[in-house]
Amino acid sequence: MIKAAILGYGTVGSGVYSVLESNKRLINERAGQEIEVKYVLDLRDFPDDPVEKVLTHDFEDIINDPEVKIVVEVMGGINPAFDFTRRCLEEGKNVCTSNKELVAEHGLELMKTARENDVNYFFEASCGGGIPIIRALNDCLTADDIDEITGILNGTTNYILTEMTEKGTGFSKVLKSAQELGYAERDPSADIDAFDPARKIAILASIVFGSSVDYKDIYTEGIRKISAEDIKYATTLGYAIKLLATAKRTPDGVMAYVAPFLVDPTHPLFPINGVMNAVYVHGNMLGDAVFTGAGAGSLPTASAVVADVIDAARHDGKRAYCGWRHDEKLALASSGNVKRKYLVRISTEDEGEANKVFSPEGFLDIISLGELEEEVAFITPELTEEDFEARAKGFGKVISRIRFC
Amino acid sequence: MIKAAILGYGTVGSGVYSVLESNKRLINERAGQEIEVKYVLDLRDFPDDPVEKVLTHDFEDIINDPEVKIVVEVMGGINPAFDFTRRCLEEGKNVCTSNKELVAEHGLELMKTARENDVNYFFEASCGGGIPIIRALNDCLTADDIDEITGILNGTTNYILTEMTEKGTGFSKVLKSAQELGYAERDPSADIDAFDPARKIAILASIVFGSSVDYKDIYTEGIRKISAEDIKYATTLGYAIKLLATAKRTPDGVMAYVAPFLVDPTHPLFPINGVMNAVYVHGNMLGDAVFTGAGAGSLPTASAVVADVIDAARHDGKRAYCGWRHDEKLALASSGNVKRKYLVRISTEDEGEANKVFSPEGFLDIISLGELEEEVAFITPELTEEDFEARAKGFGKVISRIRFC
Repeated sequence: MIKAAILGYGTVGSGVYSVLESNKRLINERAGQEIEVKYVLDLRDFPDDPVEKVLTHDFEDIINDPEVKIVVEVMGGINPAFDFTRRCLEEGKNVCTSNKELVAEHGLELMKTARENDVNYFFEASCGGGIPIIRALNDCLTADDIDEITGILNGTTNYILTEMTEKGTGFSKVLKSAQELGYAERDPSADIDAFDPARKIAILASIVFGSSVDYKDIYTEGIRKISAEDIKYATTLGYAIKLLATAKRTPDGVMAYVAPFLVDPTHPLFPINGVMNAVYVHGNMLGDAVFTGAGAGSLPTASAVVADVIDAARHDGKRAYCGWRHDEKLALASSGNVKRKYLVRISTEDEGEANKVFSPEGFLDIISLGELEEEVAFITPELTEEDFEARAKGFGKVISRIRFC
Repeated sequence: MIKAAILGYGTVGSGVYSVLESNKRLINERAGQEIEVKYVLDLRDFPDDPVEKVLTHDFEDIINDPEVKIVVEVMGGINPAFDFTRRCLEEGKNVCTSNKELVAEHGLELMKTARENDVNYFFEASCGGGIPIIRALNDCLTADDIDEITGILNGTTNYILTEMTEKGTGFSKVLKSAQELGYAERDPSADIDAFDPARKIAILASIVFGSSVDYKDIYTEGIRKISAEDIKYATTLGYAIKLLATAKRTPDGVMAYVAPFLVDPTHPLFPINGVMNAVYVHGNMLGDAVFTGAGAGSLPTASAVVADVIDAARHDGKRAYCGWRHDEKLALASSGNVKRKYLVRISTEDEGEANKVFSPEGFLDIISLGELEEEVAFITPELTEEDFEARAKGFGKVISRIRFC
């Protein structure tokens, strides 16, 4: 028997309690011992909810109880989650969390504290919801040197882009309906400005490459500027626009970025639609692998947290392996030398200039959509961003420019 | 330091040796100790190959060496692999294998021997090549009650079906070119008659449902009878034909079967093409998850075997959890009550009879392809196989009948 406490009885916390109750027999069998929730911490009361019998409003009940060996931190946000987590680890309690903000911001320090106190800090649910990507990296794909990890790591933006593609609707309208359906927050910035997937790819890159990647160092561009017209051009070309979060090893070092990309139909993330998330991994022996699943939601996220709880029970008194094991920060390489093709929309007036500066032979293929009379689009050769900007100076206006993957 | 031996220096064995050499530093870090290959067993000699220095022709060298704690069995076939594996386990050596024939045939007995001798029998590479599906089930999706697992588990047949779809070529011609490319064996029966995916789904179902599923109990139908015309109808309807291997819990018990199915574009396995494999899993908390990767090939398979070796090193002296833990066999439920739609091709002469027996209103939608003048196709309502057969008795001939997924 091992005793656990849950910090926070919100969407994920109530899911965790529910998963532990619903699948109790299987979970105990897999954990090798019975897991009992001794406390649930929340400031609120929940009359008539079965959680009431283990509810506490005081964190000190938990931290001072030596019987509690596993603490589930599903409060979200930095404070007081950071302080609570550190204190739990220092007291020799394992901590399992879904809190991507905290892991991205203070993961390095908390991993160190866990190591010093011979306990585990698990955070499977911080990336990709129910997709077991962190455990896949730490425990499954162990024979490989992973050189790239690229994901669709945010369900809200993938839902918005999918709806825009399928219905031809504009960004604002789809965002509004996503908010009404509960797929987007009232303040949607973390999703649509892509801070959320930037945090997640920082965490995954830290595991893959061993040293901490600071999400603030990652070039991050959201989907706010993607228009129905951009998507129209993409589908005309047979492509999809996806918000990709990527980290890869290059001769210049590890590069990471989050941005919308044009993805061709043979790309493994092309078929990932709606609120689904997926992570593509390339290993030097394995080749390509893709992990797909629900990126959010109470029960899928709770499923990942409970898998951590089971692993904590299995590793009671022992440290589990985690690829994110070095104390230094990883300095990301500049992507200044990366050459890519771009889909560029310009005014019809600039077509001559485009031919001049982007096609050495002066015969650029021009895409012209019937309903957009005043503009044309074209695909550039492979260029660095700097080179693109220099050449685009002569245009009256660049309506939009989207990178090819 | 932990010492290992490799039984068999063929395609997979040489891959295992190569992966262990190429990624040595990372592998030792992840294993928590150095892994050294002390012996490679093969009847042949390999002059000028670095393996020569650890090569032996005598299994007794390995079984009698108490230093050897991990044995990699990648010989394939039942004999002498079965005998060697049993003796290794009895001697307290962990065994890691890619041998699906052996696991499907004698897995139950070998698991028991491993348990009795407090060692591990790992077989990640037996299903889905490089896809870490077994470890995902045993160590990652541990919070879930899995009620369905469905896979494209054979790269050869998926390659053949994909080629037939993309090029419109007939089965025999594609099989021949697959053989020339090395994607199909000279005797292709295990693949195209689907014994291979039947073995794999039996292994996966044994892990998911806890008790041994005998592959010989699984209804198994290969792709030999699928024609270019069948595929033409499927693509006209927007569907793909995929060889699916599935096991699912139903109110009648666990059902399992392997057969070609019509798969619609929203199905998670629809986009899996060529030699890729993929496994779809449904968990009661997680919902849908899909794992995709290379289903075969020397290095991807070796990558999975080496992940087992690392896990064996991590569990040195300890037993790892495996869902396949009960000693009894699982009696599969009959699928006699399952109702499905079928795509049926008949002679144009039988169109009237089809309308009479398959459409209560007498208005069956008929699909008629221009180039196939003497036949028509239609989609039945949902029927049991028995009901279908009874109604189809009045036809002169059923040209083909393919199940909808």
